[in-house]
Amino acid sequence: MIQRYANKKIDEIWSDMFKLNLWQKTELMVLKAKASLGYIQWKTYEQIKKILETNPINVEWWLQRDKEIHHDLNAFIDERLRFLPESLQVHFHKKITSFDTEEAPFASMLIFSIICVDEGLNELSNIIVEMAKKYRYTIMNGRTHGQEAEMQTFGKRCLTWLQDLRVDNDNLKKAATNLKYSKLSGAIGNYGSIDPEVEKRTLELLGFDPYYGATQIMPRELYAPIAQALCQVAQTVDKIATAIRLGARSSQPIFQEPFAKKQKGSSAMPHKKNTIRTEQIEGMARMAKGYFIMIMDNIKTWEERAIEQSCVERVAWPDLFHTVIRSIDVMKKVLSGLMVYPDNMLLEIVKSRGCYASSEAKEIIRELGAPVGLTTNEAYRIVQLAAFNIFEKGNRAKKLRKKLSQSLDKADDLLDDFEQNPESASSYASIKYIIPNGELRASEQLDAAEEDIKEWNATLKVIFGNQKNLFRWYKIFRPSYLLRNEQKLYQEILGE
Amino acid sequence: MIQRYANKKIDEIWSDMFKLNLWQKTELMVLKAKASLGYIQWKTYEQIKKILETNPINVEWWLQRDKEIHHDLNAFIDERLRFLPESLQVHFHKKITSFDTEEAPFASMLIFSIICVDEGLNELSNIIVEMAKKYRYTIMNGRTHGQEAEMQTFGKRCLTWLQDLRVDNDNLKKAATNLKYSKLSGAIGNYGSIDPEVEKRTLELLGFDPYYGATQIMPRELYAPIAQALCQVAQTVDKIATAIRLGARSSQPIFQEPFAKKQKGSSAMPHKKNTIRTEQIEGMARMAKGYFIMIMDNIKTWEERAIEQSCVERVAWPDLFHTVIRSIDVMKKVLSGLMVYPDNMLLEIVKSRGCYASSEAKEIIRELGAPVGLTTNEAYRIVQLAAFNIFEKGNRAKKLRKKLSQSLDKADDLLDDFEQNPESASSYASIKYIIPNGELRASEQLDAAEEDIKEWNATLKVIFGNQKNLFRWYKIFRPSYLLRNEQKLYQEILGE
Amino acid sequence: MIQRYANKKIDEIWSDMFKLNLWQKTELMVLKAKASLGYIQWKTYEQIKKILETNPINVEWWLQRDKEIHHDLNAFIDERLRFLPESLQVHFHKKITSFDTEEAPFASMLIFSIICVDEGLNELSNIIVEMAKKYRYTIMNGRTHGQEAEMQTFGKRCLTWLQDLRVDNDNLKKAATNLKYSKLSGAIGNYGSIDPEVEKRTLELLGFDPYYGATQIMPRELYAPIAQALCQVAQTVDKIATAIRLGARSSQPIFQEPFAKKQKGSSAMPHKKNTIRTEQIEGMARMAKGYFIMIMDNIKTWEERAIEQSCVERVAWPDLFHTVIRSIDVMKKVLSGLMVYPDNMLLEIVKSRGCYASSEAKEIIRELGAPVGLTTNEAYRIVQLAAFNIFEKGNRAKKLRKKLSQSLDKADDLLDDFEQNPESASSYASIKYIIPNGELRASEQLDAAEEDIKEWNATLKVIFGNQKNLFRWYKIFRPSYLLRNEQKLYQEILGE
Amino acid sequence: MIQRYANKKIDEIWSDMFKLNLWQKTELMVLKAKASLGYIQWKTYEQIKKILETNPINVEWWLQRDKEIHHDLNAFIDERLRFLPESLQVHFHKKITSFDTEEAPFASMLIFSIICVDEGLNELSNIIVEMAKKYRYTIMNGRTHGQEAEMQTFGKRCLTWLQDLRVDNDNLKKAATNLKYSKLSGAIGNYGSIDPEVEKRTLELLGFDPYYGATQIMPRELYAPIAQALCQVAQTVDKIATAIRLGARSSQPIFQEPFAKKQKGSSAMPHKKNTIRTEQIEGMARMAKGYFIMIMDNIKTWEERAIEQSCVERVAWPDLFHTVIRSIDVMKKVLSGLMVYPDNMLLEIVKSRGCYASSEAKEIIRELGAPVGLTTNEAYRIVQLAAFNIFEKGNRAKKLRKKLSQSLDKADDLLDDFEQNPESASSYASIKYIIPNGELRASEQLDAAEEDIKEWNATLKVIFGNQKNLFRWYKIFRPSYLLRNEQKLYQEILGE
Repeated sequence: MIQRYANKKIDEIWSDMFKLNLWQKTELMVLKAKASLGYIQWKTYEQIKKILETNPINVEWWLQRDKEIHHDLNAFIDERLRFLPESLQVHFHKKITSFDTEEAPFASMLIFSIICVDEGLNELSNIIVEMAKKYRYTIMNGRTHGQEAEMQTFGKRCLTWLQDLRVDNDNLKKAATNLKYSKLSGAIGNYGSIDPEVEKRTLELLGFDPYYGATQIMPRELYAPIAQALCQVAQTVDKIATAIRLGARSSQPIFQEPFAKKQKGSSAMPHKKNTIRTEQIEGMARMAKGYFIMIMDNIKTWEERAIEQSCVERVAWPDLFHTVIRSIDVMKKVLSGLMVYPDNMLLEIVKSRGCYASSEAKEIIRELGAPVGLTTNEAYRIVQLAAFNIFEKGNRAKKLRKKLSQSLDKADDLLDDFEQNPESASSYASIKYIIPNGELRASEQLDAAEEDIKEWNATLKVIFGNQKNLFRWYKIFRPSYLLRNEQKLYQEILGE
Repeated sequence: MIQRYANKKIDEIWSDMFKLNLWQKTELMVLKAKASLGYIQWKTYEQIKKILETNPINVEWWLQRDKEIHHDLNAFIDERLRFLPESLQVHFHKKITSFDTEEAPFASMLIFSIICVDEGLNELSNIIVEMAKKYRYTIMNGRTHGQEAEMQTFGKRCLTWLQDLRVDNDNLKKAATNLKYSKLSGAIGNYGSIDPEVEKRTLELLGFDPYYGATQIMPRELYAPIAQALCQVAQTVDKIATAIRLGARSSQPIFQEPFAKKQKGSSAMPHKKNTIRTEQIEGMARMAKGYFIMIMDNIKTWEERAIEQSCVERVAWPDLFHTVIRSIDVMKKVLSGLMVYPDNMLLEIVKSRGCYASSEAKEIIRELGAPVGLTTNEAYRIVQLAAFNIFEKGNRAKKLRKKLSQSLDKADDLLDDFEQNPESASSYASIKYIIPNGELRASEQLDAAEEDIKEWNATLKVIFGNQKNLFRWYKIFRPSYLLRNEQKLYQEILGE
Repeated sequence: MIQRYANKKIDEIWSDMFKLNLWQKTELMVLKAKASLGYIQWKTYEQIKKILETNPINVEWWLQRDKEIHHDLNAFIDERLRFLPESLQVHFHKKITSFDTEEAPFASMLIFSIICVDEGLNELSNIIVEMAKKYRYTIMNGRTHGQEAEMQTFGKRCLTWLQDLRVDNDNLKKAATNLKYSKLSGAIGNYGSIDPEVEKRTLELLGFDPYYGATQIMPRELYAPIAQALCQVAQTVDKIATAIRLGARSSQPIFQEPFAKKQKGSSAMPHKKNTIRTEQIEGMARMAKGYFIMIMDNIKTWEERAIEQSCVERVAWPDLFHTVIRSIDVMKKVLSGLMVYPDNMLLEIVKSRGCYASSEAKEIIRELGAPVGLTTNEAYRIVQLAAFNIFEKGNRAKKLRKKLSQSLDKADDLLDDFEQNPESASSYASIKYIIPNGELRASEQLDAAEEDIKEWNATLKVIFGNQKNLFRWYKIFRPSYLLRNEQKLYQEILGE
Repeated sequence: MIQRYANKKIDEIWSDMFKLNLWQKTELMVLKAKASLGYIQWKTYEQIKKILETNPINVEWWLQRDKEIHHDLNAFIDERLRFLPESLQVHFHKKITSFDTEEAPFASMLIFSIICVDEGLNELSNIIVEMAKKYRYTIMNGRTHGQEAEMQTFGKRCLTWLQDLRVDNDNLKKAATNLKYSKLSGAIGNYGSIDPEVEKRTLELLGFDPYYGATQIMPRELYAPIAQALCQVAQTVDKIATAIRLGARSSQPIFQEPFAKKQKGSSAMPHKKNTIRTEQIEGMARMAKGYFIMIMDNIKTWEERAIEQSCVERVAWPDLFHTVIRSIDVMKKVLSGLMVYPDNMLLEIVKSRGCYASSEAKEIIRELGAPVGLTTNEAYRIVQLAAFNIFEKGNRAKKLRKKLSQSLDKADDLLDDFEQNPESASSYASIKYIIPNGELRASEQLDAAEEDIKEWNATLKVIFGNQKNLFRWYKIFRPSYLLRNEQKLYQEILGE
């Protein structure tokens, strides 16, 4: 991964030096296992251990040798044998095959890397928990299909993000249980040379259980779900990022990404505060998907194995980790510094003109209307008509929609006009008022006959002439009523 | 493809009957070619032709036979041989292999299907051309990173969509040139039984050139780029769909999808006008990608071919066409009935408070400021500061941002308050005015010292005290100035 | 999915009728839950239940209505309301949103479909278990990189396949635990209208736990890992299929796919027994990947949801299930009827000329050679050289490799010659003999000096002049020695 | 890309320094264009050019600045402005936006990289052309479904590879024509600040045509087909690699990868000559697909652009090029040193026992049989039966297939037996002889009645009792007859 997006720990875990040291660890644990089983003398193990640990691996030598013999594990053995007397050489890498040495280290590198992701996820989750608490009473429009739906708090939205990440983390944990296995069962997995007891003892020393049924290598079926789980993290973070980008759209943003005091948004346009971080997160999600697909394809191999998977794993695994961690890190920065505008959230609600309660409104009318002859379908249509009525435009707008400007000069004039009088109405009508007042009007956009509307208005006046009904009606527009059950979510999710 | 999303023509082209008739056509053209080369008598060809054409293929019989012998082309031959006397049988499917019969029909089916896509693309392009003309002077904010950038017309945005589709169409055309080739070169492509002249003549009769270098089949390298080109169409249509969804976000939508008079937006919320069509287009884009990837994988096969590609092609090609055409068709409906709100476009511009000209503003100040000692960097920072100033919030908002509500009851009160007084300011400040007036103020968000600002204000007053300069300044905020060059785009793209 | 590849049960589970009945079930369980909580009278629930269950859903009516109002769930409600008196209508689909009704059915459809996959996997696994037992002592070459590696039994290879499938099944089971959750928490997931208790009780009746933190829908993060697990099954089956195809390569096949007595392998070439089933499995694996990627992309949506995922789920889920089950079914047929040729397996071993024990050979020489001055590296080079020696070609072949035929006539002659004398040697040399006999020769392909070789030969003669050593040497070439540890695998995997 | 797989030229082309110099070139060409249009003085351009070119860009300074202001293009401008006096500063990056500066360089980097791929493809093609010539008369089995099909020369197979690569190269060329366009049309593509004439002149100086219809950036629809074309190259090279791997399977390989004199094939098994290079090529093909999919996703963006594509392009493009070039380079090495064994090719043909001519055999019998009452279907079944007969096994094998060994000791004995007598027959029967001799026998595997077979044998004896017929019969088994038309392929493909 290019330095711009690389994570230092991941770079270290996937470095040659780190890997070679893990290979040496496997070799030493094989010897320790054999000693403990009485196959070799303890002294032999201890001598080899001492010599190898006091002579660090020379990565340059190893690279050079690999180029010569086209086999990286053999090159490693040659490098190590340099320091062992012939009497000890015979014990080193004895009766095992390359991937007996390599598989446990590979699993270890995955484990170490997953720990980095896990830490990142935990930090990100903690940030979101704090947000959920902080914004517990900060109301905003919920949005489905990009449209204002019902009202919610921003805290509740944070809870949904938190749970999405918990699902991801849970997926990752479940997939990572596959990493408890490894193998040292020889060139085709049937212990032709090695004793199953040596495998078991060695893996125990390395922290693994034997996987019975390996070929020369562990089946890549064990790892693909891990890559999927990692990729999925990047997709979820991108989903959250998209919610932020959508809220950060000018002109009345409810969110903005943190913006440094010296930051420049654009080389041309000095006013810009661009959502560059959340957009980069989308890029990372695209990349993660690509790396994951590479790894998914690694399941297939020929018979007791071929080596197609090797180059892919050298590149795609570390780059997948870099990408996912980058994605998490950027999101941590974005959320830590996120500018949240409760005033604009309120304005959005106001501008939704009571529709945030349209569902409840329909239900009340359905209930109160039934005794006086309104059907379920009519209740629906009444609220729908009211909603269309209150968003009906003034004359200036209507005219403009019908007759578009026909020149740039005309556009100049229109802009002047709107600049002087941006809004034609000084306040916002609302279904909250026009329904109980029986003020429905016909709409060009809906199929409702004048006489039906007239009758509906009369019925509504009757219903809401009753003060008790009117009291119930107004109540459904209050946050304290609509959001009464969010407490349940806080209880279940945060244990409050 | 399920009926909900299927296109009738594509269903027909990929039906068994259609395919079997094309197979028969190949077989007949082989005979015709042989007759014209003097290898068989013309009479033989004509007799077979007459018999086969008067005895329609029995698809049921064929399906039954295929199940028995596990070979669809052999089953077809058996079905046809039923009607031929033994003396003619010897000439039928003589010295050719299954894929000699099948490859040209396969290419034909692709060609017929591409024609459907092409028709759809043309219709969609025509709709967009009309929109580009209609909205030639309808001004709106251009948006980068979701933020208002410079001003443009909606017509110009339509032109960019049009060009994107033209790129796609061009890609498709280029890829489709691969379909001019086919083969009848026998079981492994070296004319073991068939004469190259027969191949050439037959293909000529079918409308193809010979592809030299086939194996048993045409290399799938020829078709993968076509699938990519088709998939890409769905991605572009999705990009356009996303622009519409973004513009359709309440509360001040500049677009809305057509909404039928009896349509219901939600089972719960009667007020909803959801962007369900453009969202479905995104789903189609996801599907198209999946089908394309299946086809991409078909390049690989063993030696002179194996048959992995066959089942994929039976499914993925028609479903890819269904998906792309569905995507185009839905977009045609959306754009044909698109509700466009120039009033809200104007409001968006007004609310961007002059920033749509920030780039020009910076350049003027750079130019006029240079002689009086303003650096390029200062010009940038002046406009940036002005932009931040004019979006600075009133006290109510500032207070709210600092101290969030701590209960739902408090939220009730806040909502009441904002409902009464939605906006704290009745008009919109603009960089258009505060810059020439030298009214810059310090901002918490930017790194600019009080004394610098003071000096900048003084300099700005000097510069714009000059009436000529002020005249230039105001001009840059006018559509007729900013959009003067869009004419070039109309010329180049629509030939106007 | 086209009928050729469709599974009947999956078709039924994903049919409109099946889905609509599940929707109705949700609606009825909501009423039952409300009755049990005392929110409505039991009578109300029972009346509605009786009416709806005695009036089957009219799918045609529903489809027609859906086309009119563009909302499938609302169309369903309208269809059902036709049969309810107004007094009962008010209770139906009250205060819940479309996806409250739809999510549990969707999860149920996934569960039912997974059961079908699970059954298939179990049947396939059972077939493989029987094969592992049957071929427990049938020896063959293990192969890595397509080359003979060490010896194994075919039973052991079956065990590795079995374990691969168990890994897949385990992945699927782990992923499927996500299906224990569902939701009825309203239009944006915060129980605006519905009581959390009603959700809990309803889901209990339907067999689910509440998922806390849903938006309008369940997060698609829950389902993507399931699609991955399914896709992975198809990849593993393809891996097994590839092993069979590789073994079925003529001219000395160790496997052949079952071939029906009336089957025709090719329209041109009557001798063909093609591996068409295992090749189709590769096609299915390609398709499964495409469907999975479509579903993976469904994680992303806007805010409290948009509906991009809907069309993808209507198509990709059933087609993914069809594909995976088809893949399993075809493999069941292939393995049930697989023709296994132990004679050719033995021939392959013989033709590997002792190299199946090269690893052990190297270790013995390393061990016995150390006291007489052979280094580890020399032991390796001795066995390598022996292996290259025994595969050295006779003069006819060597000549031919150097001087290729220069005309087709010459090719005629060569073919005649080889037809008369296919092999130049009547028996197969082996490292088993040339090493203890000290018969190593220089090879053009390896870097070994004549004098070194001379010395090695002398040393080898010394070592194996010792009868005890020679006895050890011959032992390593015996199956009973080399495969002694396969028993461990049978124990651990089959519990024998 | 990690150094192990990286190409030096690609690394250089995508280095910071290379990119920054291209950015500077764009900026200078803008000034030159303006000078040539009379917008600025020639002197201004020349002074800036001189200063900038004598002060090399400091990459470290730039990186530091980018971290501070989060904008790489602005950081570049700041770096350059350091060296310009204020009087010249005003002209630098005037009235253009970041991507006006960046797009042409990006296209240039693609072009330079494609040239590298093109060179590689040409070199690889040349190697294959030489092989096609060299092996023009080297006969081998063609294989479909892994089974011997008809006969061909290895030269002819090389021609099919050559043509596959030519298709890929042609696709790449067609896609790359999209790179002739670029843009400098401002922040949203409508020339708000820049004059279309300046764009045109600048691009001319840089070697591009203006793309009309850009947003802030060029539509990524232009580049996705290029990525597909590149990815496809890797897939084709993998297809060729797979053919080599299949031919290199022991025990009777027709190909082997070059093997260095000091190479070690395995750490455990000294005899191994593994196909590691061609397997790595498969890994590269997997990676290329992943990178391509990342780039494909870049088509989608919001409105006049967001910056999701940027990070993907920084990583996926160079890595896609590295991967494809690595794939080509490895294949060049493999083919240059490929060991080809015509003797084993001949043996394979011999072992196919005349079936390489089964298609012609069937046609002759069809033709000669028709007058004496054989149907087309019978002709097919006769050849099929003959083919099954000649592959029928001897008693030892038959017994073994029915009664598997039941212990490892029994396996020891069997292996001894086969080692002593590897083949039960000393020569290979062939359909070439048993058909004209009328020696067909019943087969358990096929549905043919004894009496039918008897009658067929009699008929065959009659037919081939005729010497003329027998002469025709033998002729079809000769390479000079079967391959007579390969000349046509050489003519058409190599122009011979």
